[in-house]
Amino acid sequence: MRQIICLRLVSSLLTSKMRSHTYIDSLGSASIMAKILNGKDLANEIKEELKLKVAAWVNEGHRTPSLRCIIVGDDPASRTYVNNKVKAAKFVGIDALAINHDATISEDALIAEIERLNADENVDGILVQLPIPETMNERKVCNAITPEKDVDGFHIINIGRLCTDMPAIVPATALGVVEMLKRYKIETFGRNAVVIGRSKNVGMPIAMLLHSDKRHDSGLGMDATVTICHRYTPKDQLEFYCRNADIIVTATGLPKLIKADMVKPGATIIDVGITKVIDENGKSALTGDVDFEEVSKVAGAITPVPGGVGPMTVAMLMHNTLQAAQNRVHSYKLQ
Amino acid sequence: MRQIICLRLVSSLLTSKMRSHTYIDSLGSASIMAKILNGKDLANEIKEELKLKVAAWVNEGHRTPSLRCIIVGDDPASRTYVNNKVKAAKFVGIDALAINHDATISEDALIAEIERLNADENVDGILVQLPIPETMNERKVCNAITPEKDVDGFHIINIGRLCTDMPAIVPATALGVVEMLKRYKIETFGRNAVVIGRSKNVGMPIAMLLHSDKRHDSGLGMDATVTICHRYTPKDQLEFYCRNADIIVTATGLPKLIKADMVKPGATIIDVGITKVIDENGKSALTGDVDFEEVSKVAGAITPVPGGVGPMTVAMLMHNTLQAAQNRVHSYKLQ
Repeated sequence: MRQIICLRLVSSLLTSKMRSHTYIDSLGSASIMAKILNGKDLANEIKEELKLKVAAWVNEGHRTPSLRCIIVGDDPASRTYVNNKVKAAKFVGIDALAINHDATISEDALIAEIERLNADENVDGILVQLPIPETMNERKVCNAITPEKDVDGFHIINIGRLCTDMPAIVPATALGVVEMLKRYKIETFGRNAVVIGRSKNVGMPIAMLLHSDKRHDSGLGMDATVTICHRYTPKDQLEFYCRNADIIVTATGLPKLIKADMVKPGATIIDVGITKVIDENGKSALTGDVDFEEVSKVAGAITPVPGGVGPMTVAMLMHNTLQAAQNRVHSYKLQ
Repeated sequence: MRQIICLRLVSSLLTSKMRSHTYIDSLGSASIMAKILNGKDLANEIKEELKLKVAAWVNEGHRTPSLRCIIVGDDPASRTYVNNKVKAAKFVGIDALAINHDATISEDALIAEIERLNADENVDGILVQLPIPETMNERKVCNAITPEKDVDGFHIINIGRLCTDMPAIVPATALGVVEMLKRYKIETFGRNAVVIGRSKNVGMPIAMLLHSDKRHDSGLGMDATVTICHRYTPKDQLEFYCRNADIIVTATGLPKLIKADMVKPGATIIDVGITKVIDENGKSALTGDVDFEEVSKVAGAITPVPGGVGPMTVAMLMHNTLQAAQNRVHSYKLQ
């Protein structure tokens, strides 16, 4: 009975477009499964669109957009991420190259390399795969990339522009989350959103876009009421905010932080976390911040991990690279 | 009886230092009055400290710090604000000058003037009093001031630094709010804060400082859980967030938006709003966003309007000007 009431409540919260399918479980109770926000398919759709845009751009007589991805050290995850980026770039028609450096490279030498790429007329986008060795100042390295080629959007000028609702190169994960909400037609205007995690590369820019005014210059504002939770938010308060949220975006790297009883029926759950966990049989798997199996029975829409936000990040990086190439040709300055 | 329970609750929430005084009203009920966060006195204290610091700085052989305040048009409120700034500067020993322009000055001419002041070795701080005529691009004008002399902290580089927790020139109102919370020893770590209003000059930087990590470079983070409410937050949701807040910072310009029944007993209320209202007798008065008379019976601490955040803003602008002068001499670049 409780589940039927729950079902009605959920149904009334969902628009007809995003209504999920109902199933009858083995005990005969009606339950509901959240709509899966399939980041992989959506990213493929975006990459197909970008492929056409890049081709059109090159057709107009411009050279192929180009991206340089710098890796420092031999972190396997970093290599995987960069490989994925290079692969996606090739798919959409962007000329991409991974540049590998030993972890022993000095900060000065790394910055000198970035400056060479800044000056190189054949390069449109530059990124330094994070993390870099702790001996280096990550902020200084991010700020060494000229804002126009800063396709990660981590330079303070891009952050400053983002935070004042000006057109900017927006960090790809934040842009991926916004794009996903838009394409799945998740209403954000006047809704309650919770962002868990306050990192400057992920949580902060997401909170910034979610709460900002859509009518401002960037056009990316989502007009939600936003609560920023983090490591010092007491557990009971995190639960309190989550239970009231229409949209939860979590980016903590804490597996199964978000449980079903923390989620309002029908809410949208965007899981940015990705953590490698080893089960009792020694098998490793990737998991997000959300207890997907349980939460998907309560939520209205949910991203899987993997296959949710991750592919969207890579697709939006390609979007940023094309944008950088076009800005360069049009001499559009981000300063 | 209800009020006695309320009193106990409030007392348990307050530290001994900030416990307010109890009074017995004419009907014999025990009630409690919030501690008044006296911005005027606090600003005077800060200005006295700055006076000593400026004198010490000049004593070391440096020239007197200098501030130039540009006004465009003849808005009486702008003139009053600039007069207060020049007066405060004189008090602390800063050489300040108001520069008046007709509303008819072109944006180009205004920017040319800013560039002259940027290049002038005798000028440490420059501000353009807002609002400027609507024919001008406010963002462009704010970004014309070199970040090192941008004592209002509105340049995208200062905003970008603020939003990445780097040392920056921080908008004076946001800095004033943080300084007030610190000096009155209002705990923010892990507490619930609500910021009402998402303006880029006030609400946004306050929300940024309140939620950020204190251990980061700027040292200004307050580690609170922060909810950003704005014009599209439904009224019932605004009430919901406010009732759960340990700290409410409101910056909307909507008189008496915050009522007593929206406030948790013992909460701290920072009222950044200031609006001129005309009563039924035609008399004008300044009022904040908070129903002060009623809310001060519930809150643990509250700023009055006027005499709260306003004077703090002016004092922190003087702080920023001395900082700019010292940065210039030490060739500290904010880029």
